[in-house]
Amino acid sequence: MTKKFKIDSNSPTPIYQQIADWMTENITSGTWEKGQKLQSEEELSRQLEINRGTLRKAISVLIEQGMLIRIHGKGTFVDEQKISYPFAQELISFAESMEAKGYTFQTNVLEKKIIHPNIQTQKKLDITDNDYVLYLQRVRLIENEPTIVLANWVSLKHCPGIDQEDFETVSLFSAIEKYSNSKITVGTRRFSAKALNQKQANLISMNKNDPVLHINQTTFLLNDIPIEHSEVLLRTDKYEVTSVLTR
Amino acid sequence: MTKKFKIDSNSPTPIYQQIADWMTENITSGTWEKGQKLQSEEELSRQLEINRGTLRKAISVLIEQGMLIRIHGKGTFVDEQKISYPFAQELISFAESMEAKGYTFQTNVLEKKIIHPNIQTQKKLDITDNDYVLYLQRVRLIENEPTIVLANWVSLKHCPGIDQEDFETVSLFSAIEKYSNSKITVGTRRFSAKALNQKQANLISMNKNDPVLHINQTTFLLNDIPIEHSEVLLRTDKYEVTSVLTR
Repeated sequence: MTKKFKIDSNSPTPIYQQIADWMTENITSGTWEKGQKLQSEEELSRQLEINRGTLRKAISVLIEQGMLIRIHGKGTFVDEQKISYPFAQELISFAESMEAKGYTFQTNVLEKKIIHPNIQTQKKLDITDNDYVLYLQRVRLIENEPTIVLANWVSLKHCPGIDQEDFETVSLFSAIEKYSNSKITVGTRRFSAKALNQKQANLISMNKNDPVLHINQTTFLLNDIPIEHSEVLLRTDKYEVTSVLTR
Repeated sequence: MTKKFKIDSNSPTPIYQQIADWMTENITSGTWEKGQKLQSEEELSRQLEINRGTLRKAISVLIEQGMLIRIHGKGTFVDEQKISYPFAQELISFAESMEAKGYTFQTNVLEKKIIHPNIQTQKKLDITDNDYVLYLQRVRLIENEPTIVLANWVSLKHCPGIDQEDFETVSLFSAIEKYSNSKITVGTRRFSAKALNQKQANLISMNKNDPVLHINQTTFLLNDIPIEHSEVLLRTDKYEVTSVLTR
């Protein structure tokens, strides 16, 4: 049950912050469930015996912190907890990460073709103008929500036949290891923030110019052979990338 | 000297991509210098003997890839290479990272005060309502450009006196180790993308709603004592965060 809120007028903590703290406690303790709708501002301010401006300030603080979310015309809701990926920590694939956490996910292949890559990709994969790569564009859905857009370029020189694989059911890392008859050993990842263009936004049900995490990856087989390059767009309003680092 | 461009009409690579590849080669080889202005579209299309629409498509591809940058009313320029931080790789501080790379940087302290933190911060630092923290807000400039906004909450319980330090000249990590008489051993970092609000945008000379990387960090002393929590906003149009991962 929701703990009663009482203003502590002797506390140095401002009242809006006391309300925000009380709400945070209700959310982190699970008293208020994820997705639950808050009472109207009118009801809440009357019930808590505070003025509406102070309540609004508290709510704004929690929206800023991602604890609450305001949906226009519908009200204010307890936000979903973010799902975290250890992408900055381990060379784990999206599929492996989701399987480990027990989430259901689905892969839609939008494009799969054999191409001559441009010079930038040639340099990343240490191949020439005469070499071919498999180009894949996929969208990943978690719990039925489109979340990640992936573009991959796989060096066919070291993975002949990999283009025959069905990437709606098979993970790219396992296919690479199967067709290369080698092991993925190391990867480099670069993280930056990007604003979505309209086409990308449509793919993951967001709006144009919404911010997403952009991950730029190159993976290597044994003997430092670069085998795959990818560009990944990840929505981080519900998901985030984590890393535990030692000194 | 710039290598002459010649269309290969037998290549499966589309002409705009051949132009983009030729430009990329000029940029990555250093023939075209960082910051150099490109000739006008009219001049370039005449010189390369291609139509202007094809040239524009090639330029768009390179702008999208961050090789070129178009500045309204000024022209198209070779973009600066991104500076990379191994923030997703090592528990290295911003100051240490910049020093290692030989960049000049400067720190402006915007706010420095002792406060009672809210419940969320209390939980992260494992302290109670009665404990105090040092709250710091700083802006970091690299090569005279504002690049990072940092907000830090440092547990005073384990670092008494740290508030007397001058954080324009002393790094937070070294001050923590000095006043706690302990060692920073581990840190957790969470990465997501955010759109700047107007106030944040002003601090790093960007525009409202521009995308930035948001890093959420907690650092620990020996014996797993949480000592510091921070929220960092990093512009990644010129900078990015890197990680080398093994499997």
